[in-house]
Amino acid sequence: MEMNIALLPGDGIGPEVVDQAVKVVNAVAKKFGHTITFEKALTGAAAIDAVGLPYPDETHEVCLRSDAVLFGAIGDPKYDNDPSAKVRPEQGLLLMRKKLGLFANVRPTFTFPSLIDKSPLKRDRIEGTDLVFLRELTGGIYFGEPRGRSEQGDRAFDTCVYNVFEIERLARMGFEFARKRRKLLTCVDKANVLATSRLWRETVQRLAPEYPDVKVEYEFVDAVAMRLIQWPKSYDVLITENLFGDILTDEASVISGSMGLMPSASLGSDIKLFEPIHGSYPQAAGKNIANPLATVLSASMMFEYAFDLQEEANLISEVVNRSIEEGIVTEDLAGDGKAYKTSEVGDWLAEQIA
Amino acid sequence: MEMNIALLPGDGIGPEVVDQAVKVVNAVAKKFGHTITFEKALTGAAAIDAVGLPYPDETHEVCLRSDAVLFGAIGDPKYDNDPSAKVRPEQGLLLMRKKLGLFANVRPTFTFPSLIDKSPLKRDRIEGTDLVFLRELTGGIYFGEPRGRSEQGDRAFDTCVYNVFEIERLARMGFEFARKRRKLLTCVDKANVLATSRLWRETVQRLAPEYPDVKVEYEFVDAVAMRLIQWPKSYDVLITENLFGDILTDEASVISGSMGLMPSASLGSDIKLFEPIHGSYPQAAGKNIANPLATVLSASMMFEYAFDLQEEANLISEVVNRSIEEGIVTEDLAGDGKAYKTSEVGDWLAEQIA
Ligand SMILES: CC(C)[C@H](C(=O)O)[C@@H](O)C(=O)O
Ligand SMILES: CC(C)[C@H](C(=O)O)[C@@H](O)C(=O)O
Repeated sequence: MEMNIALLPGDGIGPEVVDQAVKVVNAVAKKFGHTITFEKALTGAAAIDAVGLPYPDETHEVCLRSDAVLFGAIGDPKYDNDPSAKVRPEQGLLLMRKKLGLFANVRPTFTFPSLIDKSPLKRDRIEGTDLVFLRELTGGIYFGEPRGRSEQGDRAFDTCVYNVFEIERLARMGFEFARKRRKLLTCVDKANVLATSRLWRETVQRLAPEYPDVKVEYEFVDAVAMRLIQWPKSYDVLITENLFGDILTDEASVISGSMGLMPSASLGSDIKLFEPIHGSYPQAAGKNIANPLATVLSASMMFEYAFDLQEEANLISEVVNRSIEEGIVTEDLAGDGKAYKTSEVGDWLAEQIA
Repeated sequence: MEMNIALLPGDGIGPEVVDQAVKVVNAVAKKFGHTITFEKALTGAAAIDAVGLPYPDETHEVCLRSDAVLFGAIGDPKYDNDPSAKVRPEQGLLLMRKKLGLFANVRPTFTFPSLIDKSPLKRDRIEGTDLVFLRELTGGIYFGEPRGRSEQGDRAFDTCVYNVFEIERLARMGFEFARKRRKLLTCVDKANVLATSRLWRETVQRLAPEYPDVKVEYEFVDAVAMRLIQWPKSYDVLITENLFGDILTDEASVISGSMGLMPSASLGSDIKLFEPIHGSYPQAAGKNIANPLATVLSASMMFEYAFDLQEEANLISEVVNRSIEEGIVTEDLAGDGKAYKTSEVGDWLAEQIA
């Protein structure tokens, strides 16, 4: 198969972890006889520094002519602590999601047998956790208008907006996911307070009869924030709006034992995007110590979701598991064992595949 | 001292748990020679059923002529699953907070030595946790206008609004709290995306130089959702907006090992309100099984924050600790031991005080 992959390393540790995913993807391509071309492009602070914009048109073009996008991370503290900055790296990520029509972010949470004891949570609570969030990604308070400041500057506002069609397409995807899994769908909202949440709940209630094999639960976001830690095994598929999804999926990543482990896939159009759920981790940038596994697992999701190549996807997951079992891991997972460098982990994974 | 306390039991398990707090407050009054009068009033679904409104004027009057309000819980599933309901119990709680000017909700999270092993989190992660959230309670997306539906009904919207003065008064309270504690203040926002969050961050940055003894950290809400579980001991005082506070404080309550344990105080005007952070738990209503300790500890906060009676407050905390140590607890905490009834726990606590 021929595949053209847009590479958007972004900021902070993004370039380092994406490099390792490239090694792994190349090794897979070689083994299975695929022809892969990579095209690199700038996003985030890196793009602002170079051309003044966080998602330049040239980058968008690169994405448009690709079959899939592999993304690193975005964000730079020099913008975070300047609330008055006019251009900010994150706008690049949001614009990219919007312009590519990536309305659904698939974020699985699972455990690795050999890592369970690294989790801050007790073994019996998390062993066997296998849940997946579908986070709405191009609507809600991330994009709603109006947003900004009053003229005097003493008042700020954001708007959360949802259209029925946005909820419906995400919810349908959730029902389909649930069908292929344990047939339990949890709709996470704050319908006791928010008008948008009530539209979510109403829409999901309307669709439910079309999926009689799927059990639907409705739960408030605050309750989920609690149950996710107490009984993560009680969930299967969770659907939710953009901001709740942002918060809850980061929270859920704790279950796996390291933020450096959880991948994601952004779906919604022909061009799909794959990225780790962790951030740009600026303190570690350039030190060759960041954990590349979430990005490598995102490449595994890419083979599955973008190219329907399950065997390739599985092989990547397997070697990642093996690296964890054999302790070929970066310092966040090393414990008392040897801490490998980011690039060493990538090399090892690529070798194993070959 | 003479104290006039408004009692708002609310819905679900509210009446049962408030009853136990009343027993405890009466025992304290007797011991310390205070004269306490209680005046009961309706809120939530109970008030809708009786008079059609979730926070009737008569209830507001009762609050206004009180020295402090002791509140149970609000919410009823018959409204939750009817997104088109015109009146809903939660509106009562929101209206009450707003009309009483209770802009700051103080939600501590701590552990009980004898309960640490009940937490889903590992002992070494949580032992010694002592953090407190100040959640903004009368602004943000809970109250912002416009909110509602488009005419066709195919679009819903909510507005998050913050004025500088609302942020400033909460932030100042946060700085003052931090001063009396470990001098670390964490401002939780989503300033990389939201205009309101940027105003929060800007305002806190502007105030910080006035409190040079307090160290200020800024952290994104998604990162906090993670660190709160991973390293809860790394926090001291956290300030945040209404919705983030709702989600994160429920999440934090997991640390203590039961949702039935965490109290709260709502401050901002002469009349202060005290309530458990748990909900109305309708499945348990009327069964005499709900854990009353969060409400009893809210009464302890009442003596501290509303009446500045530290000795009384401490005594209540002590007997609560003792009940946990001696296993005089409801089924959620009983484990293999005997599960006491809600009313039995209340009786025991009152006896101990006497
Ligand atoms: C960087 C930020 C804008 C982004 C988000 O909030 O969506 C990130 O936290 C994520 O979850 O991908
Ligand atoms: C019942 C609900 C409206 C309320 C809130 O969201 O504020 C509750 O969850 C709380 O935290 O007190």
